[in-house]
Amino acid sequence: MLKKGLKIVTIGGGTGTFTLLSGLKKYTSNLTAVVSMADSGGSTGRLRDEFGILPPGDVRRALIALSSGSEQLLLRQLFEYRFENGSKGSSLNGHSFGNLFLTALNGIFNDQVKAIQEAGRLLDIKGEVLPVTLTDTHLVARLEDGTLIRGETNIDIRLVYPNLKILDVFLDPPAEACKSVLQAIRRADLIVIGPGDLYTSIIPNLLVKGVSEAIAKTRGKVIYVCNIMNKHGETDSFTASRYVKEIQSYLGSPAGKRSYIDKVLVNEGRYPKRLLTKYAEEKAYPVEIDISELEDLVPSVRIVDCTVKGSLMRHDSNKLGRAILIGNG
Amino acid sequence: MLKKGLKIVTIGGGTGTFTLLSGLKKYTSNLTAVVSMADSGGSTGRLRDEFGILPPGDVRRALIALSSGSEQLLLRQLFEYRFENGSKGSSLNGHSFGNLFLTALNGIFNDQVKAIQEAGRLLDIKGEVLPVTLTDTHLVARLEDGTLIRGETNIDIRLVYPNLKILDVFLDPPAEACKSVLQAIRRADLIVIGPGDLYTSIIPNLLVKGVSEAIAKTRGKVIYVCNIMNKHGETDSFTASRYVKEIQSYLGSPAGKRSYIDKVLVNEGRYPKRLLTKYAEEKAYPVEIDISELEDLVPSVRIVDCTVKGSLMRHDSNKLGRAILIGNG
Repeated sequence: MLKKGLKIVTIGGGTGTFTLLSGLKKYTSNLTAVVSMADSGGSTGRLRDEFGILPPGDVRRALIALSSGSEQLLLRQLFEYRFENGSKGSSLNGHSFGNLFLTALNGIFNDQVKAIQEAGRLLDIKGEVLPVTLTDTHLVARLEDGTLIRGETNIDIRLVYPNLKILDVFLDPPAEACKSVLQAIRRADLIVIGPGDLYTSIIPNLLVKGVSEAIAKTRGKVIYVCNIMNKHGETDSFTASRYVKEIQSYLGSPAGKRSYIDKVLVNEGRYPKRLLTKYAEEKAYPVEIDISELEDLVPSVRIVDCTVKGSLMRHDSNKLGRAILIGNG
Repeated sequence: MLKKGLKIVTIGGGTGTFTLLSGLKKYTSNLTAVVSMADSGGSTGRLRDEFGILPPGDVRRALIALSSGSEQLLLRQLFEYRFENGSKGSSLNGHSFGNLFLTALNGIFNDQVKAIQEAGRLLDIKGEVLPVTLTDTHLVARLEDGTLIRGETNIDIRLVYPNLKILDVFLDPPAEACKSVLQAIRRADLIVIGPGDLYTSIIPNLLVKGVSEAIAKTRGKVIYVCNIMNKHGETDSFTASRYVKEIQSYLGSPAGKRSYIDKVLVNEGRYPKRLLTKYAEEKAYPVEIDISELEDLVPSVRIVDCTVKGSLMRHDSNKLGRAILIGNG
């Protein structure tokens, strides 16, 4: 099913990328996870502000996803550990130990890429994790009334005008891509964009100078994995084709080619009613799959059922990994 | 020179124990480091206060001393790393990453002894590190005028009446020894007490209920390694015999035996004048070796030269390890 040594690059951030990598690592070790560097909230935000480092959160999650050895189990647990049981007012409360680990490594090497590499070595990861940029930049969203919201976490957790739509997002200041990221994209056999929050995990990668151009030039196949659920305040009522259109608008228009995205994977699961009701309480609804509109946009659309069986409307990592590789190995 | 499998137990804390263990691990892997649990200052003190954990500082130093594999080099560097370059007011500044590591492990296992064991496994240590007690206790010093100073760090760094002598020290509340500590002491072939700060690193171990009794009952030989330098505010003008007398007073009096201490190792180096002057500025002077008084107290006294060549008046770990094992293997 899989060509040996198939080079796969994933582009994203957050839990979507975690799921994707957890699935893909079972089929190949030639994996490069490109992760967004726009995160600005929580433990990550505090470390950015205080230490001037790259936001470690998405890097940390990708590292954990790519680690699997039984000897590294405890280190993975440590990377996932969050200080929460300190006394009231303890300054450590809320900090992710994995984030502190990456901050300490950066303190030792004074080189953020090296720090990530060394963390990967300790965790014995399959593949590599690359920050999309080393520029200290912030995500800004422009709402339909012109209001600007600055900071990924403020866009992600919309306390300000959650019912106003996002017109577009940009990085301030503009960010330059890491050379190794551009090289990995150009040399990839397969590039997987998503799943993940559209404006806060996926597009922040495409906003980095050079990334869209590299995707346009790659000899590899580009797959977009659409989200299962819409997110309130970010992608309310989005159909699958709307996700694709947004991504295409940031990727730019190809000359003589219908789309830089070769294939879209959409999920059609049967969701238990009780689960739909639970999600609806948070104004989260399944993404509508508008097949004919999708087929107008991209050469290939595949409908799969990759949902987790249980209490979450999420992708199952194994099913997703298999679905992506079928027909692309 | 060394009987294979010789069981060595060290009792102490701080940098003296670090030096001792670094030297001894080259000669045996059957090492048990019993470390004081009275530390209350700095990063350690903050974590004690906020997380209610055992003070990690002495444990951390002993773990680093017993780790040696080249694969563990980066983990050792991380354990030694201290956050210092955070912005002004960063709550992480001053924290030892090794202390945070032990705190996170304790959060995962909810078992402080297990947390230390797992840290030892990750660092691939030779031997084991045992906290002398699991009781949450503090060291109190009674000065000659009756003033009580509470907290190891306040005794160690004497800002209060530094010219008043310490009459005695005690633990509040009284602490119970870990069973594994008592077992290790009773089964040891060789017990090494010191070097280290008398009242703040050595005696806090002897104050723990059961420790002195176990030393009295051990079939092993007991060696005391006397400090090279006196410490202002703690052991001003102490002679070597005065150190031994103090320790003997906490160990209790043996029946039909001159001393529970079988041998004292004292250091006689040739110290460069410029070094003596430098130390004298901090009111630190070499410990006078009063041989005849020492010989009245213990069966065996050995004068060695174990000093580091260089700019510190400290024990050299290799020389100290060899000196201890000569004639005791």
